[in-house]
Amino acid sequence: MPTIGCVQAFQQKALEMSAATPAPEEALPRIRKTATRLADGRELLYFDDRNFAADRRNSIDRRRLPPQAASSIRRFDRLLGEWVTIARHRQTRTYLPPDTECPLCPSTPSRPTEIPAEDYDVVVFENRFPSFSSATSPGETTLPEEAHPFFASDVGRGRCEVVCFTADHSASFSSLSLQRVRTVVEVWVDRTRELSRLEGVEQVFCFENRGREIGVTLSHPHGQIYAYPFVTPRTERMLENARRYHREVGGNLFADNLAAELASGRRIIATNEHWVAFVPYAARWPLEVHLYPRRRVPDLPELSEAERGALAHLYRDVLRRMEALYSEELPYIASWHQAPVRRDRDLAYLHAEIFSIRRAPGKLKYLAGSESAMGAFVSDVLPDEVAARLRDVDGSTP
Amino acid sequence: MPTIGCVQAFQQKALEMSAATPAPEEALPRIRKTATRLADGRELLYFDDRNFAADRRNSIDRRRLPPQAASSIRRFDRLLGEWVTIARHRQTRTYLPPDTECPLCPSTPSRPTEIPAEDYDVVVFENRFPSFSSATSPGETTLPEEAHPFFASDVGRGRCEVVCFTADHSASFSSLSLQRVRTVVEVWVDRTRELSRLEGVEQVFCFENRGREIGVTLSHPHGQIYAYPFVTPRTERMLENARRYHREVGGNLFADNLAAELASGRRIIATNEHWVAFVPYAARWPLEVHLYPRRRVPDLPELSEAERGALAHLYRDVLRRMEALYSEELPYIASWHQAPVRRDRDLAYLHAEIFSIRRAPGKLKYLAGSESAMGAFVSDVLPDEVAARLRDVDGSTP
Repeated sequence: MPTIGCVQAFQQKALEMSAATPAPEEALPRIRKTATRLADGRELLYFDDRNFAADRRNSIDRRRLPPQAASSIRRFDRLLGEWVTIARHRQTRTYLPPDTECPLCPSTPSRPTEIPAEDYDVVVFENRFPSFSSATSPGETTLPEEAHPFFASDVGRGRCEVVCFTADHSASFSSLSLQRVRTVVEVWVDRTRELSRLEGVEQVFCFENRGREIGVTLSHPHGQIYAYPFVTPRTERMLENARRYHREVGGNLFADNLAAELASGRRIIATNEHWVAFVPYAARWPLEVHLYPRRRVPDLPELSEAERGALAHLYRDVLRRMEALYSEELPYIASWHQAPVRRDRDLAYLHAEIFSIRRAPGKLKYLAGSESAMGAFVSDVLPDEVAARLRDVDGSTP
Repeated sequence: MPTIGCVQAFQQKALEMSAATPAPEEALPRIRKTATRLADGRELLYFDDRNFAADRRNSIDRRRLPPQAASSIRRFDRLLGEWVTIARHRQTRTYLPPDTECPLCPSTPSRPTEIPAEDYDVVVFENRFPSFSSATSPGETTLPEEAHPFFASDVGRGRCEVVCFTADHSASFSSLSLQRVRTVVEVWVDRTRELSRLEGVEQVFCFENRGREIGVTLSHPHGQIYAYPFVTPRTERMLENARRYHREVGGNLFADNLAAELASGRRIIATNEHWVAFVPYAARWPLEVHLYPRRRVPDLPELSEAERGALAHLYRDVLRRMEALYSEELPYIASWHQAPVRRDRDLAYLHAEIFSIRRAPGKLKYLAGSESAMGAFVSDVLPDEVAARLRDVDGSTP
């Protein structure tokens, strides 16, 4: 694992960039990155933008924590050709604590949390209940695996990080300032770059689960990053189709799909110089928006400064539009599809897929037999109509 | 669509079979099948076993129903290579009615339901809010589709049926008599056979969604049957892997997997002469049991009489074991994986996959970012331990 210094080349670059870009809100904010360790050895990184001068190095985690969980295992499903991960220690993870016991709020003298500092801007730390980790010994807590060739397994090596977007417990991603969204983009870039360098990591996945309805156990605004030791099944399938398309038709499947959506225009909901947001033609979810850069890049670190700035605008805009459709808090999953770390980087096309299971006020879409058992999605709404609604709402305020 | 007579060769065969098989409980019950139509033209089929002599032909649906919904459409997702179905009329389907307004209970003189008769044993009828139907004109209710080659669509032709297992509103599948389970097996066989003959149907899927936690909107014990106009994505993927396995290794992937599970024994939970129930090595769900016949057959109609009788036993036994693990009602999905109607019948292996999202008392497994966006399942439980628990509980009583 690469060592992370307290004041970095990264920050130096930030200082340089902020002078070069024109629109001050979109400009790369000054970010100070500070690395520390929690009581059980997990890494924690402060990304300070508001309190740029703050020195977080002296905030020490004084909790007595049990040792880090043993690693997970992964088993290969021969029938579907997919890895399934088993992380037993997650069964006892923190579950819907009251707001006064939120582990993602800053620490106070009387209540230490996961974040030792008494304030923070954006903070990233290794998940205490990780699906993947750098622990290498699953032996203590699991049965010995079987030797039969049908039963292939491996250690669930990788890394799972939590990204707290703000110290404000009651905020949401869509209520963040544009500058903070820009910082979060830079954090995704930094983490994708760093985690891609870890031994055995094949794909880095930045995402946000929001809402109790989809199982979120902590309401503090936060996202997650999974560094998988394999290329995920949905990415594998998209790449297979992109490979076949390139061979049979020529061109890039994702790029041609984006061009087709732009040419049609029916499902486009918002665009700017560098990004396009649309409801896909064959959307699976009652609310689903895909966000593509106009220029194909494999992953977030490959975005230019201008593209990152423009992303902050449109990403927040899309979330606000989606949330404006219902008066209830919107449960959603926001997911970044990035190229595998080591292959198919010429085929993949970085994009975000943001979707919700809300299908009507008070009603949710559930994945029942057809979806869960057969993979055959049945939607109750026409994507073109959803796009029209999202186009018409105001994305300028949270 | 084939015409269905009121007294059939099927019934004749039933009468013949019941004398030939030894164990009276497993024997094919006498079943009388009676076909009728509902007020809006939908077909309804009575399968009487208890009231074999009952003549249902005179029960007439006197409701004034609006015309049947227009057909759904399906759109092809080029990135994933999968069909997504859009059935807008389902947005207004009946949603959690009180027990006194259950549309699946028998009719009374003052309250007509979907089933005109005042009693029934098992009844099958066309879903009033179908994902697929024989309607051919989606034009009235949807936008005209687009001509661009990236936007391929078709009518959602097919058929969706509801199967009421009993007139008893408060029963469950696991509380049915063995004779009634045997009747339901025969109904699945009959419907698979009939629906496979419909023009354009490519796969028949018998399943049961149970529990409000997975979105079931009617609590009356019932299952469903979907006759899809395409081979479903999960089946496609399994068949691709089976094809590759046959080419590279030889043999049948499903059969060799079953043999491996039997040789290991660790995850077997119950067996009989004709069937094996096990928790799969790489189970995705916190509770998941697969049920395979020892002899490979492509679909339910290909099962022998003895295999059908033995299935009734083990299927109910598995459900009872799963339900015995928790005091709360268990939400589950029970799904039949059958071969496509027209191809790959030599590769496919009929089996049931029964799974639940219950991961602990009061806690559910949700499909969040990793599962829904990336297709990468992370489970909190070790399949081998779940199997041990299911082996140890009593499956003899509901």
